[in-house]
Amino acid sequence: KIVEDVLALALPKQDLQGKNILVTAGPTVEAIDPVRFLSNRSSGKMGYAIAEAAQARGAKVTLVSGPTHLKTPTGVKLISTTSAISMYEAVLEHFSQQDIVIKAAAVGDYRPENPSAVKIKKQEGNLSINLVRNPDILLELGKKKEHQILVGFAAETNNLLEYAKGKLEKKNADLMVANDVSQEGAGFGTDTNTVHIIDRQGKEIKIERASKLEVAHKILDKTLELK
Amino acid sequence: KIVEDVLALALPKQDLQGKNILVTAGPTVEAIDPVRFLSNRSSGKMGYAIAEAAQARGAKVTLVSGPTHLKTPTGVKLISTTSAISMYEAVLEHFSQQDIVIKAAAVGDYRPENPSAVKIKKQEGNLSINLVRNPDILLELGKKKEHQILVGFAAETNNLLEYAKGKLEKKNADLMVANDVSQEGAGFGTDTNTVHIIDRQGKEIKIERASKLEVAHKILDKTLELK
Repeated sequence: KIVEDVLALALPKQDLQGKNILVTAGPTVEAIDPVRFLSNRSSGKMGYAIAEAAQARGAKVTLVSGPTHLKTPTGVKLISTTSAISMYEAVLEHFSQQDIVIKAAAVGDYRPENPSAVKIKKQEGNLSINLVRNPDILLELGKKKEHQILVGFAAETNNLLEYAKGKLEKKNADLMVANDVSQEGAGFGTDTNTVHIIDRQGKEIKIERASKLEVAHKILDKTLELK
Repeated sequence: KIVEDVLALALPKQDLQGKNILVTAGPTVEAIDPVRFLSNRSSGKMGYAIAEAAQARGAKVTLVSGPTHLKTPTGVKLISTTSAISMYEAVLEHFSQQDIVIKAAAVGDYRPENPSAVKIKKQEGNLSINLVRNPDILLELGKKKEHQILVGFAAETNNLLEYAKGKLEKKNADLMVANDVSQEGAGFGTDTNTVHIIDRQGKEIKIERASKLEVAHKILDKTLELK
Protein backbone atom coordinates (compact mmCIF):
# COMPACT_ATOMS: atom_id res chain seq x y z
CA LYS A 1 0.00 0.00 0.00
CA ILE A 2 2.75 2.47 0.95
CA VAL A 3 4.78 1.49 -2.11
CA GLU A 4 1.71 1.98 -4.28
CA ASP A 5 1.09 5.42 -2.77
CA VAL A 6 4.69 6.48 -3.32
CA LEU A 7 4.59 5.26 -6.91
CA ALA A 8 1.29 7.03 -7.47
CA LEU A 9 2.90 10.29 -6.39
CA ALA A 10 6.18 9.68 -8.21
CA LEU A 11 4.63 8.61 -11.50
CA PRO A 12 1.22 10.21 -11.56
CA LYS A 13 -1.30 8.92 -14.05
CA GLN A 14 -2.03 11.31 -16.91
CA ASP A 15 -5.77 11.24 -16.27
CA LEU A 16 -6.20 15.00 -16.59
CA GLN A 17 -4.53 15.21 -19.99
CA GLY A 18 -6.26 17.80 -22.16
CA LYS A 19 -8.31 19.23 -19.28
CA ASN A 20 -8.30 22.92 -18.42
CA ILE A 21 -8.33 23.40 -14.67
CA LEU A 22 -8.51 26.69 -12.83
CA VAL A 23 -7.48 26.69 -9.17
CA THR A 24 -7.79 29.64 -6.79
CA ALA A 25 -5.48 29.88 -3.79
CA GLY A 26 -4.34 32.04 -0.95
CA PRO A 27 -5.98 34.89 0.92
CA THR A 28 -7.50 38.09 -0.40
CA VAL A 29 -6.21 41.40 0.91
CA GLU A 30 -8.57 44.36 1.27
CA ALA A 31 -6.99 47.78 1.70
CA ILE A 32 -8.22 50.02 4.51
CA ASP A 33 -5.64 52.64 3.48
CA PRO A 34 -2.21 52.42 1.78
CA VAL A 35 -0.73 50.81 4.93
CA ARG A 36 -3.46 48.85 6.70
CA PHE A 37 -5.50 45.98 5.38
CA LEU A 38 -7.94 43.23 6.21
CA SER A 39 -6.94 39.66 5.32
CA ASN A 40 -7.08 36.06 6.50
CA ARG A 41 -4.74 33.27 7.52
CA SER A 42 -4.73 31.32 4.26
CA SER A 43 -1.14 30.48 3.23
CA GLY A 44 -2.14 29.25 -0.24
CA LYS A 45 -0.53 25.83 0.36
CA MET A 46 -3.66 23.76 -0.32
CA GLY A 47 -4.44 25.54 -3.59
CA TYR A 48 -0.83 25.41 -4.79
CA ALA A 49 -0.74 21.68 -4.00
CA ILE A 50 -3.88 21.15 -6.11
CA ALA A 51 -2.36 23.14 -8.96
CA GLU A 52 0.85 21.08 -8.72
CA ALA A 53 -1.04 17.76 -8.59
CA ALA A 54 -3.30 18.66 -11.53
CA GLN A 55 -0.33 19.80 -13.61
CA ALA A 56 1.52 16.54 -12.84
CA ARG A 57 -1.55 14.59 -14.02
CA GLY A 58 -1.51 16.34 -17.38
CA ALA A 59 -3.96 19.22 -16.94
CA LYS A 60 -3.43 22.72 -18.27
CA VAL A 61 -3.57 24.64 -15.00
CA THR A 62 -4.39 28.30 -14.36
CA LEU A 63 -3.69 29.34 -10.77
CA VAL A 64 -5.42 32.52 -9.60
CA SER A 65 -3.70 33.42 -6.36
CA GLY A 66 -3.83 36.09 -3.70
CA PRO A 67 -0.54 37.19 -2.09
CA THR A 68 1.46 34.20 -0.81
CA HIS A 69 5.13 33.36 -0.30
CA LEU A 70 4.91 30.17 -2.35
CA LYS A 71 6.71 29.19 -5.54
CA THR A 72 4.45 28.72 -8.54
CA PRO A 73 4.56 25.02 -9.57
CA THR A 74 6.47 24.51 -12.84
CA GLY A 75 4.22 24.59 -15.88
CA VAL A 76 1.35 26.31 -14.08
CA LYS A 77 0.08 29.70 -15.33
CA LEU A 78 -0.10 32.14 -12.42
CA ILE A 79 -2.50 35.08 -12.27
CA SER A 80 -1.75 37.24 -9.22
CA THR A 81 -4.59 39.03 -7.48
CA THR A 82 -5.05 40.96 -4.24
CA SER A 83 -8.63 41.94 -3.41
CA ALA A 84 -11.69 39.72 -3.74
CA ILE A 85 -12.86 41.89 -6.63
CA SER A 86 -9.60 41.38 -8.53
CA MET A 87 -9.82 37.62 -7.92
CA TYR A 88 -13.47 37.62 -9.02
CA GLU A 89 -12.58 39.38 -12.27
CA ALA A 90 -9.66 37.03 -13.02
CA VAL A 91 -11.74 33.91 -12.38
CA LEU A 92 -14.73 35.12 -14.41
CA GLU A 93 -12.48 36.07 -17.32
CA HIS A 94 -11.11 32.51 -17.56
CA PHE A 95 -14.20 30.54 -16.54
CA SER A 96 -15.70 29.66 -19.94
CA GLN A 97 -12.62 27.70 -21.13
CA GLN A 98 -12.36 25.56 -17.99
CA ASP A 99 -13.38 21.94 -17.48
CA ILE A 100 -12.88 22.02 -13.73
CA VAL A 101 -12.69 24.93 -11.28
CA ILE A 102 -11.42 24.31 -7.75
CA LYS A 103 -11.85 27.24 -5.40
CA ALA A 104 -9.32 26.74 -2.62
CA ALA A 105 -8.75 30.47 -1.99
CA ALA A 106 -10.02 32.04 1.21
CA VAL A 107 -11.93 34.95 -0.24
CA GLY A 108 -12.73 37.74 2.19
CA ASP A 109 -16.49 38.13 2.57
CA TYR A 110 -16.16 41.87 3.25
CA ARG A 111 -14.08 44.86 2.24
CA PRO A 112 -13.85 48.35 3.74
CA GLU A 113 -16.57 50.56 2.32
CA ASN A 114 -14.34 53.60 1.73
CA PRO A 115 -10.64 52.77 1.59
CA SER A 116 -8.57 55.90 2.16
CA ALA A 117 -5.98 57.06 -0.39
CA VAL A 118 -3.74 58.33 2.42
CA LYS A 119 -2.79 56.70 5.72
CA ILE A 120 -5.57 57.33 8.23
CA LYS A 121 -4.16 59.22 11.22
CA LYS A 122 -4.94 57.62 14.52
CA GLN A 123 -7.18 59.56 16.81
CA GLU A 124 -8.25 59.46 20.41
CA GLY A 125 -10.76 56.80 21.29
CA ASN A 126 -12.34 54.07 19.26
CA LEU A 127 -12.86 53.74 15.57
CA SER A 128 -15.39 51.87 13.53
CA ILE A 129 -14.79 50.49 10.04
CA ASN A 130 -17.75 49.95 7.76
CA LEU A 131 -17.49 46.86 5.65
CA VAL A 132 -19.49 45.93 2.57
CA ARG A 133 -20.01 42.47 1.07
CA ASN A 134 -17.62 41.25 -1.60
CA PRO A 135 -18.91 39.43 -4.67
CA ASP A 136 -19.47 35.74 -3.91
CA ILE A 137 -17.29 34.11 -6.56
CA LEU A 138 -18.51 30.54 -6.00
CA LEU A 139 -22.16 31.62 -6.09
CA GLU A 140 -21.61 33.44 -9.40
CA LEU A 141 -19.81 30.45 -10.92
CA GLY A 142 -22.60 28.16 -9.74
CA LYS A 143 -25.12 30.33 -11.61
CA LYS A 144 -23.01 30.58 -14.76
CA LYS A 145 -21.74 27.03 -15.03
CA GLU A 146 -22.49 24.95 -18.12
CA HIS A 147 -20.16 21.97 -18.57
CA GLN A 148 -17.80 22.95 -15.74
CA ILE A 149 -17.30 20.89 -12.60
CA LEU A 150 -17.21 23.21 -9.63
CA VAL A 151 -15.37 22.29 -6.43
CA GLY A 152 -15.69 24.62 -3.43
CA PHE A 153 -14.00 24.75 -0.05
CA ALA A 154 -15.63 25.45 3.28
CA ALA A 155 -13.13 26.52 5.94
CA GLU A 156 -14.86 26.49 9.28
CA THR A 157 -14.08 26.38 12.97
CA ASN A 158 -17.43 24.94 14.07
CA ASN A 159 -20.47 23.07 12.65
CA LEU A 160 -18.19 22.12 9.75
CA LEU A 161 -20.26 19.52 7.89
CA GLU A 162 -23.54 21.32 8.35
CA TYR A 163 -22.14 24.57 6.94
CA ALA A 164 -20.37 22.72 4.12
CA LYS A 165 -23.54 20.90 3.02
CA GLY A 166 -25.53 24.11 3.06
CA LYS A 167 -22.85 25.82 1.00
CA LEU A 168 -22.76 22.99 -1.58
CA GLU A 169 -26.51 23.38 -2.17
CA LYS A 170 -26.67 27.14 -2.10
CA LYS A 171 -23.72 27.65 -4.42
CA ASN A 172 -24.69 24.92 -6.89
CA ALA A 173 -21.25 23.32 -6.54
CA ASP A 174 -20.51 19.70 -7.49
CA LEU A 175 -18.19 18.91 -4.60
CA MET A 176 -17.41 20.66 -1.38
CA VAL A 177 -14.18 20.18 0.54
CA ALA A 178 -14.91 20.77 4.22
CA ASN A 179 -11.86 21.94 6.10
CA ASP A 180 -11.87 22.25 9.89
CA VAL A 181 -9.26 24.97 10.21
CA SER A 182 -9.27 24.83 14.01
CA GLN A 183 -7.84 21.30 14.04
CA GLU A 184 -4.19 20.48 14.74
CA GLY A 185 -2.33 19.67 11.50
CA ALA A 186 -5.14 20.97 9.31
CA GLY A 187 -6.20 24.21 7.73
CA PHE A 188 -4.20 27.41 7.33
CA GLY A 189 -0.42 27.48 7.11
CA THR A 190 0.14 23.80 7.87
CA ASP A 191 1.80 21.36 5.46
CA THR A 192 -0.80 18.69 6.18
CA ASN A 193 -4.56 18.70 6.04
CA THR A 194 -7.60 16.62 7.01
CA VAL A 195 -10.78 17.23 5.04
CA HIS A 196 -14.19 15.79 4.27
CA ILE A 197 -15.29 15.68 0.65
CA ILE A 198 -19.04 15.99 0.19
CA ASP A 199 -20.94 15.37 -3.04
CA ARG A 200 -24.41 16.38 -4.21
CA GLN A 201 -25.89 13.05 -3.12
CA GLY A 202 -24.89 13.98 0.42
CA LYS A 203 -22.19 11.31 0.47
CA GLU A 204 -19.19 12.35 2.48
CA ILE A 205 -15.77 10.77 2.63
CA LYS A 206 -13.12 11.63 5.14
CA ILE A 207 -9.56 12.16 3.95
CA GLU A 208 -7.32 11.34 6.89
CA ARG A 209 -4.46 13.64 7.75
CA ALA A 210 -1.88 13.64 4.95
CA SER A 211 0.38 16.09 3.14
CA LYS A 212 -1.52 18.76 1.24
CA LEU A 213 -0.16 17.27 -2.01
CA GLU A 214 -1.67 13.87 -1.14
CA VAL A 215 -4.96 15.49 -0.15
CA ALA A 216 -4.83 17.40 -3.46
CA HIS A 217 -4.59 14.12 -5.41
CA LYS A 218 -7.55 12.69 -3.47
CA ILE A 219 -9.64 15.76 -4.29
CA LEU A 220 -8.75 15.36 -7.97
CA ASP A 221 -9.63 11.63 -7.79
CA LYS A 222 -13.09 12.44 -6.42
CA THR A 223 -13.57 15.19 -9.00
CA LEU A 224 -12.79 12.82 -11.85
CA GLU A 225 -15.28 10.25 -10.51
CA LEU A 226 -18.05 12.80 -11.17
CA LYS A 227 -17.51 12.73 -14.93
CA LYS B 1 34.33 56.45 -1.88
CA ILE B 2 32.68 53.29 -3.26
CA VAL B 3 35.62 51.19 -2.10
CA GLU B 4 35.36 52.75 1.35
CA ASP B 5 31.65 52.02 1.49
CA VAL B 6 32.16 48.41 0.47
CA LEU B 7 34.91 47.96 3.05
CA ALA B 8 32.74 49.57 5.69
CA LEU B 9 30.04 46.99 5.03
CA ALA B 10 32.45 44.07 4.68
CA LEU B 11 34.49 44.87 7.78
CA PRO B 12 32.17 46.83 10.01
CA LYS B 13 33.69 48.78 12.86
CA GLN B 14 32.96 47.30 16.28
CA ASP B 15 31.56 50.57 17.60
CA LEU B 16 28.54 48.94 19.25
CA GLN B 17 30.61 46.44 21.24
CA GLY B 18 29.08 45.91 24.66
CA LYS B 19 25.84 47.72 23.81
CA ASN B 20 22.43 46.13 24.28
CA ILE B 21 20.15 47.05 21.41
CA LEU B 22 16.52 46.13 21.06
CA VAL B 23 14.98 46.41 17.60
CA THR B 24 11.31 45.93 16.76
CA ALA B 25 10.32 44.84 13.26
CA GLY B 26 7.48 43.71 11.07
CA PRO B 27 3.75 44.18 11.29
CA THR B 28 1.36 43.42 14.09
CA VAL B 29 -1.58 41.11 13.43
CA GLU B 30 -4.88 41.64 15.25
CA ALA B 31 -7.39 38.78 15.17
CA ILE B 32 -10.98 39.53 14.20
CA ASP B 33 -11.80 35.81 14.54
CA PRO B 34 -9.72 32.61 14.13
CA VAL B 35 -9.55 33.19 10.36
CA ARG B 36 -9.68 36.93 9.69
CA PHE B 37 -7.32 39.62 10.87
CA LEU B 38 -6.26 43.23 10.57
CA SER B 39 -2.64 43.93 9.69
CA ASN B 40 -0.36 46.20 7.68
CA ARG B 41 2.11 46.02 4.82
CA SER B 42 5.34 45.98 6.84
CA SER B 43 7.63 43.18 5.62
CA GLY B 44 10.07 43.53 8.52
CA LYS B 45 13.01 44.11 6.16
CA MET B 46 14.07 47.48 7.61
CA GLY B 47 14.04 46.22 11.21
CA TYR B 48 15.85 43.00 10.34
CA ALA B 49 18.49 45.04 8.48
CA ILE B 50 19.02 47.20 11.58
CA ALA B 51 19.32 44.08 13.76
CA GLU B 52 21.85 42.59 11.32
CA ALA B 53 23.88 45.81 11.11
CA ALA B 54 23.94 46.29 14.89
CA GLN B 55 25.00 42.69 15.44
CA ALA B 56 27.79 43.05 12.88
CA ARG B 57 29.02 46.14 14.73
CA GLY B 58 29.32 44.23 18.00
CA ALA B 59 26.01 44.89 19.76
CA LYS B 60 24.02 42.33 21.67
CA VAL B 61 20.77 42.47 19.71
CA THR B 62 17.25 41.50 20.75
CA LEU B 63 14.81 41.52 17.83
CA VAL B 64 11.12 41.70 18.76
CA SER B 65 9.30 40.84 15.57
CA GLY B 66 5.77 40.43 14.31
CA PRO B 67 5.06 37.70 11.73
CA THR B 68 7.46 37.97 8.75
CA HIS B 69 9.00 35.57 6.26
CA LEU B 70 12.55 36.71 7.02
CA LYS B 71 15.50 34.77 8.38
CA THR B 72 16.69 35.92 11.78
CA PRO B 73 20.23 37.35 11.40
CA THR B 74 22.87 35.07 12.93
CA GLY B 75 23.65 35.90 16.54
CA VAL B 76 20.48 37.93 17.05
CA LYS B 77 18.00 36.89 19.76
CA LEU B 78 14.49 36.71 18.27
CA ILE B 79 11.30 37.23 20.27
CA SER B 80 8.23 36.47 18.11
CA THR B 81 5.04 38.43 18.68
CA THR B 82 1.71 38.81 16.89
CA SER B 83 -0.61 41.49 18.31
CA ALA B 84 0.42 44.97 19.39
CA ILE B 85 -0.23 43.96 23.01
CA SER B 86 2.14 40.99 22.76
CA MET B 87 4.80 43.24 21.19
CA TYR B 88 4.24 45.86 23.90
CA GLU B 89 4.73 43.27 26.63
CA ALA B 90 7.90 41.84 25.06
CA VAL B 91 9.46 45.28 24.59
CA LEU B 92 8.59 46.48 28.10
CA GLU B 93 9.99 43.30 29.62
CA HIS B 94 13.40 43.89 28.01
CA PHE B 95 13.54 47.69 28.11
CA SER B 96 15.48 48.31 31.31
CA GLN B 97 18.61 46.44 30.12
CA GLN B 98 18.84 48.25 26.79
CA ASP B 99 21.18 51.04 25.74
CA ILE B 100 19.40 51.72 22.48
CA VAL B 101 15.87 50.87 21.34
CA ILE B 102 14.99 51.22 17.65
CA LYS B 103 11.30 50.84 16.89
CA ALA B 104 11.07 49.87 13.24
CA ALA B 105 7.93 47.74 13.62
CA ALA B 106 4.66 48.97 12.16
CA VAL B 107 2.44 48.62 15.21
CA GLY B 108 -1.28 48.64 14.52
CA ASP B 109 -2.95 51.58 16.22
CA TYR B 110 -6.20 49.66 16.65
CA ARG B 111 -7.48 46.17 17.36
CA PRO B 112 -10.99 44.69 17.12
CA GLU B 113 -12.90 45.35 20.32
CA ASN B 114 -14.37 41.85 20.62
CA PRO B 115 -12.49 39.20 18.62
CA SER B 116 -14.68 36.14 18.08
CA ALA B 117 -13.54 32.67 19.21
CA VAL B 118 -15.30 31.10 16.21
CA LYS B 119 -15.34 32.16 12.57
CA ILE B 120 -17.96 34.88 12.13
CA LYS B 121 -20.55 33.75 9.58
CA LYS B 122 -21.15 36.21 6.80
CA GLN B 123 -24.56 37.75 6.66
CA GLU B 124 -26.61 39.78 4.26
CA GLY B 125 -25.67 43.40 3.97
CA ASN B 126 -22.94 45.43 5.58
CA LEU B 127 -20.98 44.89 8.73
CA SER B 128 -19.20 47.23 11.05
CA ILE B 129 -16.15 46.35 13.14
CA ASN B 130 -15.51 48.31 16.30
CA LEU B 131 -11.85 48.98 16.93
CA VAL B 132 -10.16 50.11 20.13
CA ARG B 133 -6.78 51.80 20.51
CA ASN B 134 -3.72 49.66 21.11
CA PRO B 135 -1.10 50.68 23.65
CA ASP B 136 1.33 53.23 22.18
CA ILE B 137 4.66 51.47 22.70
CA LEU B 138 6.89 54.40 21.74
CA LEU B 139 4.95 56.80 23.97
CA GLU B 140 5.32 54.43 26.94
CA LEU B 141 9.04 53.99 26.34
CA GLY B 142 9.44 57.77 26.05
CA LYS B 143 7.87 58.16 29.48
CA LYS B 144 9.88 55.36 31.06
CA LYS B 145 13.29 56.01 29.53
CA GLU B 146 16.28 56.72 31.72
CA HIS B 147 19.63 56.19 30.00
CA GLN B 148 18.15 54.65 26.83
CA ILE B 149 18.39 56.21 23.42
CA LEU B 150 15.06 55.91 21.71
CA VAL B 151 14.72 55.84 17.92
CA GLY B 152 11.26 55.87 16.39
CA PHE B 153 9.95 55.44 12.85
CA ALA B 154 7.22 57.44 11.20
CA ALA B 155 5.79 55.68 8.16
CA GLU B 156 3.58 58.12 6.31
CA THR B 157 2.06 58.67 2.90
CA ASN B 158 1.63 62.45 3.23
CA ASN B 159 2.93 65.40 5.30
CA LEU B 160 5.85 63.16 6.20
CA LEU B 161 8.28 65.55 7.90
CA GLU B 162 5.57 67.48 9.74
CA TYR B 163 4.09 64.30 11.23
CA ALA B 164 7.54 62.90 12.02
CA LYS B 165 8.61 66.05 13.91
CA GLY B 166 5.37 66.08 15.87
CA LYS B 167 5.84 62.42 16.75
CA LEU B 168 9.46 62.96 17.90
CA GLU B 169 8.29 65.63 20.37
CA LYS B 170 5.16 63.91 21.57
CA LYS B 171 6.83 60.54 22.14
CA ASN B 172 9.99 61.96 23.76
CA ALA B 173 12.16 60.07 21.27
CA ASP B 174 15.77 60.98 20.50
CA LEU B 175 15.68 60.37 16.77
CA MET B 176 12.87 59.85 14.33
CA VAL B 177 13.29 58.06 11.03
CA ALA B 178 10.74 59.47 8.61
CA ASN B 179 9.78 56.98 5.93
CA ASP B 180 7.62 58.00 2.99
CA VAL B 181 6.05 54.62 2.29
CA SER B 182 4.24 55.87 -0.81
CA GLN B 183 7.52 56.49 -2.67
CA GLU B 184 8.93 54.14 -5.31
CA GLY B 185 11.81 52.04 -3.89
CA ALA B 186 11.02 53.00 -0.31
CA GLY B 187 8.86 51.76 2.52
CA PHE B 188 7.09 48.43 2.87
CA GLY B 189 8.29 45.28 1.17
CA THR B 190 11.06 46.89 -0.87
CA ASP B 191 14.75 46.02 -0.53
CA THR B 192 15.76 49.67 -0.67
CA ASN B 193 14.67 52.68 1.33
CA THR B 194 14.91 56.48 1.39
CA VAL B 195 14.45 58.14 4.76
CA HIS B 196 14.95 61.39 6.62
CA ILE B 197 16.53 61.23 10.06
CA ILE B 198 15.35 63.98 12.40
CA ASP B 199 16.92 64.86 15.75
CA ARG B 200 15.61 66.82 18.73
CA GLN B 201 17.29 70.01 17.54
CA GLY B 202 15.07 69.80 14.47
CA LYS B 203 18.03 68.97 12.25
CA GLU B 204 17.09 66.60 9.47
CA ILE B 205 19.34 64.68 7.14
CA LYS B 206 18.20 62.86 4.06
CA ILE B 207 19.48 59.35 3.43
CA GLU B 208 19.34 58.84 -0.32
CA ARG B 209 17.90 55.62 -1.69
CA ALA B 210 20.12 52.70 -0.73
CA SER B 211 19.75 49.10 0.39
CA LYS B 212 17.97 48.72 3.71
CA LEU B 213 21.24 47.37 5.18
CA GLU B 214 23.09 50.55 4.17
CA VAL B 215 20.25 52.71 5.51
CA ALA B 216 20.43 50.66 8.73
CA HIS B 217 24.12 51.48 9.14
CA LYS B 218 23.41 55.20 8.60
CA ILE B 219 20.69 55.11 11.27
CA LEU B 220 23.14 53.46 13.68
CA ASP B 221 25.80 56.09 12.81
CA LYS B 222 23.39 58.91 13.67
CA THR B 223 22.30 57.14 16.85
CA LEU B 224 25.91 56.84 18.03
CA GLU B 225 26.54 60.54 17.37
CA LEU B 226 23.98 61.34 20.07
CA LYS B 227 26.10 59.77 22.81
